Amino acid sequence: MIYHAPLKDMLFALNELAELPAVCALPGYEDCSVELTEAILEEAAKFAESVLAPTNRAGDAGSRLVDGKVVTPEGFADAWRQYVDAGWIGLRAPQDFGGQGLPALVALAAEEMWCSANLAFSLAPMLTLGTVEALLHHASEELRNTYLPKLSTGQWTGTMNLTEPQAGSDLAQVRTRAVPQADGSYKLSGQKIFITWGEHELAENIVHLVLARLPDAPEGVKGISLFVVPKFLVNADGSLGARNDVHCVSLEHKMGIHGSPTCVMSYGDNGGATGYLVGEANKGLAYMFTMMNHARLGVGVEGLALSERAYQKAVEYARERVQSRDIGAADQQPVAIIRHPDVRRMLLTMKAQIEAQRALACVAAAALDRAARHPNPEEKARNQALLNFLIPIVKGWCTEAANDITSLAVQVHGGMGYIEETGVAQYYRDARITAIYEGTTGIQALDLVGRKTAADGGRVARALIGEVRRTAEALSADAQMARLAEGLRDGAERAEACVAYVVDEFARDARRAAAGSVAFLKLMGLLLGGWQMGRAALIAKERLAEEGADVAFLSAKRATAAFYGAHLLPQVGALAASLLDGADTVLGCDDAAF
Amino acid sequence: MIYHAPLKDMLFALNELAELPAVCALPGYEDCSVELTEAILEEAAKFAESVLAPTNRAGDAGSRLVDGKVVTPEGFADAWRQYVDAGWIGLRAPQDFGGQGLPALVALAAEEMWCSANLAFSLAPMLTLGTVEALLHHASEELRNTYLPKLSTGQWTGTMNLTEPQAGSDLAQVRTRAVPQADGSYKLSGQKIFITWGEHELAENIVHLVLARLPDAPEGVKGISLFVVPKFLVNADGSLGARNDVHCVSLEHKMGIHGSPTCVMSYGDNGGATGYLVGEANKGLAYMFTMMNHARLGVGVEGLALSERAYQKAVEYARERVQSRDIGAADQQPVAIIRHPDVRRMLLTMKAQIEAQRALACVAAAALDRAARHPNPEEKARNQALLNFLIPIVKGWCTEAANDITSLAVQVHGGMGYIEETGVAQYYRDARITAIYEGTTGIQALDLVGRKTAADGGRVARALIGEVRRTAEALSADAQMARLAEGLRDGAERAEACVAYVVDEFARDARRAAAGSVAFLKLMGLLLGGWQMGRAALIAKERLAEEGADVAFLSAKRATAAFYGAHLLPQVGALAASLLDGADTVLGCDDAAF
Repeated sequence: MIYHAPLKDMLFALNELAELPAVCALPGYEDCSVELTEAILEEAAKFAESVLAPTNRAGDAGSRLVDGKVVTPEGFADAWRQYVDAGWIGLRAPQDFGGQGLPALVALAAEEMWCSANLAFSLAPMLTLGTVEALLHHASEELRNTYLPKLSTGQWTGTMNLTEPQAGSDLAQVRTRAVPQADGSYKLSGQKIFITWGEHELAENIVHLVLARLPDAPEGVKGISLFVVPKFLVNADGSLGARNDVHCVSLEHKMGIHGSPTCVMSYGDNGGATGYLVGEANKGLAYMFTMMNHARLGVGVEGLALSERAYQKAVEYARERVQSRDIGAADQQPVAIIRHPDVRRMLLTMKAQIEAQRALACVAAAALDRAARHPNPEEKARNQALLNFLIPIVKGWCTEAANDITSLAVQVHGGMGYIEETGVAQYYRDARITAIYEGTTGIQALDLVGRKTAADGGRVARALIGEVRRTAEALSADAQMARLAEGLRDGAERAEACVAYVVDEFARDARRAAAGSVAFLKLMGLLLGGWQMGRAALIAKERLAEEGADVAFLSAKRATAAFYGAHLLPQVGALAASLLDGADTVLGCDDAAF
Repeated sequence: MIYHAPLKDMLFALNELAELPAVCALPGYEDCSVELTEAILEEAAKFAESVLAPTNRAGDAGSRLVDGKVVTPEGFADAWRQYVDAGWIGLRAPQDFGGQGLPALVALAAEEMWCSANLAFSLAPMLTLGTVEALLHHASEELRNTYLPKLSTGQWTGTMNLTEPQAGSDLAQVRTRAVPQADGSYKLSGQKIFITWGEHELAENIVHLVLARLPDAPEGVKGISLFVVPKFLVNADGSLGARNDVHCVSLEHKMGIHGSPTCVMSYGDNGGATGYLVGEANKGLAYMFTMMNHARLGVGVEGLALSERAYQKAVEYARERVQSRDIGAADQQPVAIIRHPDVRRMLLTMKAQIEAQRALACVAAAALDRAARHPNPEEKARNQALLNFLIPIVKGWCTEAANDITSLAVQVHGGMGYIEETGVAQYYRDARITAIYEGTTGIQALDLVGRKTAADGGRVARALIGEVRRTAEALSADAQMARLAEGLRDGAERAEACVAYVVDEFARDARRAAAGSVAFLKLMGLLLGGWQMGRAALIAKERLAEEGADVAFLSAKRATAAFYGAHLLPQVGALAASLLDGADTVLGCDDAAF
């Protein structure tokens, strides 16, 4: 159950593919550097490997609700204390409020480690940072001063309260009420479900961000406001006051991430929970969306992180498990199963996707940093558009693939993979939520075809396809990468046809674009991942020519890219066919036929 | 958690695609008929729906080991008693020993229902029938008379004891010892793992089939013998005697099929377990293989059965759950999610594969019946070869797809899918074992490329591809099926190239064929499934022209076939590319690169 942070690969993705030096040169990130990043990530790796990873199996036993209090799994409280004391929670929290203000790109690599080490645990800091982001951008100075210093350091944690039984993907249906009080506060009442880390005693206080409706609010999404509802009210001097009227009434029994308590939260059972309006009334959903990009990127990384952990476990087992002779050798003695071609095929299928996904997530994080800090307004806007396009892809592709990759890891283990003590089954169960929460794959895909592709007439999509073509061109002189280059060229052509289809059909009959939306998302993920693998192969070739090159690492990177070209990129064809020629058969079927 | 046996679709597959009337005309099956089959399956449906299906959720709580005895989940003992009393276990057991001797084709449909209703439960009768088959073909008359009547009626149950910690896929490593005794019996000692229903008290006795080595046995697979080891020794008069020296020492904690106790069995802790040699010494593995075809077909059906149950659950939820507006309608009111194009795409992806898989499994079962009973030796041999080719495909394809299909069912449920009480997560967890036990997908694929394709120079494979071509040709006049016809034509061409590759490369360098073996298996599954969908579409068109046609059912069948052509068959291209042009990148990577 050992975890080794893939530092070398992370640094390659950060430095070479996401251009960390350029990100560090952005205004406000001057304190950051490649050297500092390496030092931080080395420490993060130690922490993830030695403190967090060992708590993961015990975490699978689950959090429990005892007399209204959540009892967290063995080791979690101690790990949390160490995590907060070491300042890990504040990596990308604002410096003004006690954080370290590092680029999202740097924080992302550390976050991958936390998620690999213990996903259930890592959700607490991730949600806390989401709370920080929402308050930083939208709350009054008073609310910011009250909450941000404690949240940025992990003294308190944060939660997101969106979902209600009738309001899942469709937040227009939110019914929680907020009634204004004479003192400017509000009394909230209603029930929220699926609230991750909604109750616990790791931290002194919990800061709930809650979507609710004012009495006079318009119907639908335009009548939803955002409130801060602390578990304990905060006195003027910052000390904790009375217990607020918000309680965890039950925990869900989930397929995975058992360590993370998923709470049903009840607001206002005893007269109303005291809350404070964030920003303006009726703009709650828009405020939530401003932090959605970061959150969705984070969930994509969760998928990737579980894939990485499962991959490492599969490699370890494949090296140790001796079974059956080598089909290519005369010797009849059984060999380690890593020698069997199909086991290698499985391991490479995992490895190639993980590297492509990490690279694409890093490129998205760099765009996030540039969109936030670039001094040139055009570059800022260009990067924001790029980020907006990449987010649903990173979220949807990395999490869907996590289901497949963790499944392959189970498969490599054979019968032992199905036994819980082996540990790999937990990654498979844990991973299954990532394609669902923070917007299902279907929601991501609809966002991609609508707001991110059709809305700008396919401009950003085509610009990216142009980049893919340029990389394919550069690869054409690289014999080992012939199949990859061909796959990128062919994929770019098909992708362009798909973009044209999406733009046209979304305007004509949005249902037709929606019918192929997930195929489009997966196609773009595969292709843009292949683009990153192509870039990596080219860079690795250059580096190999340098003195003192890390030949083993760079050659493996190229071999993995070649595998991606031969085994993964060909799937683009089927996805394009499904999109371009498949809407009729999706939409033409009667409801009664099911 | 309701289950409706898909009787109409089953009967279509049996009657129209697998040609049940012709199977009933085989010698020995004269008592069977289409009418009798319908009557049997209607009763089976009632039993599966009303007795077995309601026990499935409770079964997830698991069997427990208490003082060496297995306590089965609530409802299992009662369901078992009813199952045995109704005579369901003997459907395809030999008439000479109290069974009903029905064709495998008929039994298969009932078995799908048992697996859909409660997979964990259904494993007990399935293993019992495997025991019956092995003894029927290989045991002495004395052993047959002693054991078969009680096994065929379910008074006793059977188990398969193959796996040991060091001997999983590689049975050459079996170490369990069998020492001959003066009375002609043997004393067995050793440990077996992963023994499904190895201990329980549903039945009076448990008959273990055990692979073990005689003291003078040669090394490897040629030194393995098969033994019967009953839990209670059987007296000369058939009554039960002393408790034998075989005990369950622990149960595994698995990801799914919790209701089925997976036992670690210890033989000979107190001097040796008494066993009886089946057939000749050192031929145990060959004997096991004779029943492997049926067992592997059965596991393929397990995958299909869980897909069906998960699909039904997803359809039910999609009809009930109201969320978000119809993207194609002006109305802003939220609608049932079955109206959303991506949800329909998911449901059709499930439905199309399930129908194709059921059809292919039925065609394989009909081949099994013909191979067993056909009076013409050539037809018998032809059907045996066809069956041999189809078995790894049905097993591998249906079970791999079950992972995807049950995952889609979870996805349709959104966040609710991750909550265990919803029930769909159980299907996802249960399904995950099917691609592993009774030979992993990698083992099936190696069997397919080696013994089933390369060994006969691709003869059977090419004959099947010829059938695919004929169906594609027949479809070319059917406008609604244009895409399906094209996919079958194109798929047949690619499959032929793949067969040539497999035959050549297996002889030249078997590792290269092995590297693409799973791609070949999935390709053949998709293509042959598409062939069945094509046949179904043609037959449905004919039937639609008949008076009193079931228009809704037949039109839905055609719509589903068209979907298969547009969304599933295109994947053939990527699989072919992976096989034909992917071996280098699988084999060329250093072990150190992982």
